[in-house]
Amino acid sequence: MEVLIVGSVALDTVKTPYGVMEEGLGGSAMYSAVAASFFSPVKIVGVVGDDFPEKYIGILKKQKIDTGGLQRIKGGRTFRWSGIYEEKDLNSVVTLKTDLNVFADFHPILPEQYKKTPYIFLANIHPSLQMEVLHQLKSPKLVILDSMNLWIRTTKKELLDVLRKVDIFLLNDREAKMLCETTNLPYAANKILSMGPHLVIIKKGEHGAMMISKREMFSIPAYPIEDVLDPTGAGDAFAGGFIGYLASKDKVNEGILRQALAVGTVMASFNVQNFSLKGLLNVKKSSIKKRLETLKKFTEFSITEF
Amino acid sequence: MEVLIVGSVALDTVKTPYGVMEEGLGGSAMYSAVAASFFSPVKIVGVVGDDFPEKYIGILKKQKIDTGGLQRIKGGRTFRWSGIYEEKDLNSVVTLKTDLNVFADFHPILPEQYKKTPYIFLANIHPSLQMEVLHQLKSPKLVILDSMNLWIRTTKKELLDVLRKVDIFLLNDREAKMLCETTNLPYAANKILSMGPHLVIIKKGEHGAMMISKREMFSIPAYPIEDVLDPTGAGDAFAGGFIGYLASKDKVNEGILRQALAVGTVMASFNVQNFSLKGLLNVKKSSIKKRLETLKKFTEFSITEF
Repeated sequence: MEVLIVGSVALDTVKTPYGVMEEGLGGSAMYSAVAASFFSPVKIVGVVGDDFPEKYIGILKKQKIDTGGLQRIKGGRTFRWSGIYEEKDLNSVVTLKTDLNVFADFHPILPEQYKKTPYIFLANIHPSLQMEVLHQLKSPKLVILDSMNLWIRTTKKELLDVLRKVDIFLLNDREAKMLCETTNLPYAANKILSMGPHLVIIKKGEHGAMMISKREMFSIPAYPIEDVLDPTGAGDAFAGGFIGYLASKDKVNEGILRQALAVGTVMASFNVQNFSLKGLLNVKKSSIKKRLETLKKFTEFSITEF
Repeated sequence: MEVLIVGSVALDTVKTPYGVMEEGLGGSAMYSAVAASFFSPVKIVGVVGDDFPEKYIGILKKQKIDTGGLQRIKGGRTFRWSGIYEEKDLNSVVTLKTDLNVFADFHPILPEQYKKTPYIFLANIHPSLQMEVLHQLKSPKLVILDSMNLWIRTTKKELLDVLRKVDIFLLNDREAKMLCETTNLPYAANKILSMGPHLVIIKKGEHGAMMISKREMFSIPAYPIEDVLDPTGAGDAFAGGFIGYLASKDKVNEGILRQALAVGTVMASFNVQNFSLKGLLNVKKSSIKKRLETLKKFTEFSITEF
């Protein structure tokens, strides 16, 4: 089944201890769309300026991503973000500059043929824009929401409004703790369940992820990568792999959700091994499968008498 | 088979947002010995003053822990430690006071009948004292070493000397990163393997633990506890459950090591639910089993075609 992703499209300048990338293709919609495209047909809604390089459209087309919902603003400049990962700490980024440009006035407009898409990923953008998307959708099967610390801090009411209307909320551990004013993750997860979504997925970076519903809980480690070049977009690649896989099965139950979380974990692991989308673009299905098998072996244990 | 544990015995005063405990039984040897005692006979070597409450000896005896190696210094005062866990962050402690007292001049002396114990846990004490223990042992089957950030900072050479002589090194994620001057845990784990031990276990608190050898890797989440009252001793309870279980099987292979890590995880989860040793002491085998089964369910997933 098809996946619709609404989020940011950016030109990222990223510096890590291992190199610099200038104006690479980035943004939440890009990482998640490319990761999802390995499993299901993907449509994107976002905005760029007319400075957006044609080669980047080419990359999306090669992944068979439908760019019909990508607004191109005449005379506008594409959203730009730059950040630096400090020497020897790839787990946290320092934002150097955010130029919203065309993104500042963005309102997501879904082409008519997008409105009935069954699987929706509302990647990280302002919660009011996420609500605008929800109003345009016609009976989606599954809506997944991402967000960020900025919106928890500055537009919490709007975020909580959207949260009541989605199926799955995906956020990182710091955000979960911030939103619920606690440092206990299981407590935070359960509190978020009372805010609306049926399922909460907490991304923990190097520590993997956990998924909590009212009846079930699941925990998965990160796929271990020693040569992390650039962690930018890991969470979005995770989300993209997750929803892309779910849509390919077109069935949502605990078993398939767990498989999808494993797929997301593996897609994130490929993503961090190179700058921009380079880590994802050349991945083979056989490599995904191999990492899934390794990941499964990492977590298996038995119980015997004692 | 029998387990020998050498470590600290303390009277702990701990304050958390949920209460205060004054001069409760604590110390690395106590938490690990009690956790191990559920699975195997345990002997301890440590030191106390003659102010050490008789009721605490009673607690150890009730667990059938052999206290023949516990030195009692006439006119000496028992090691005291006090710490506070700040409001809403139970993941890090602030030490208020450390009174080494009799612990300052401690040298571990193994009674003759202790020297042939097959399973050894060198709980967190000065690495030179850990080396003294190693010199007294007669062909142990398995030696597990714990340590702390203080020794990495102040006596790294001595720590590295001990590290070359043990089978398993158990440390937390911050210590692993500090020791290897990196923020990448898989990298740190592999680097530690090159320092001597066959196996490294990295404790990650709320994020569980990972175990790495040259050929295998295993990751396990923490058992989720919403009502953490006092995290003191969690790492030691984990280590105690781990070695106690291993000794009960008297066989070390990947499958049993993984089971033992799960057992350690569960023992740590009981420990944090109450102050001092109260969380551990009244645990039933059936409750341990139940949490092991739940933990296993938390981590299971399948892989299908896509």
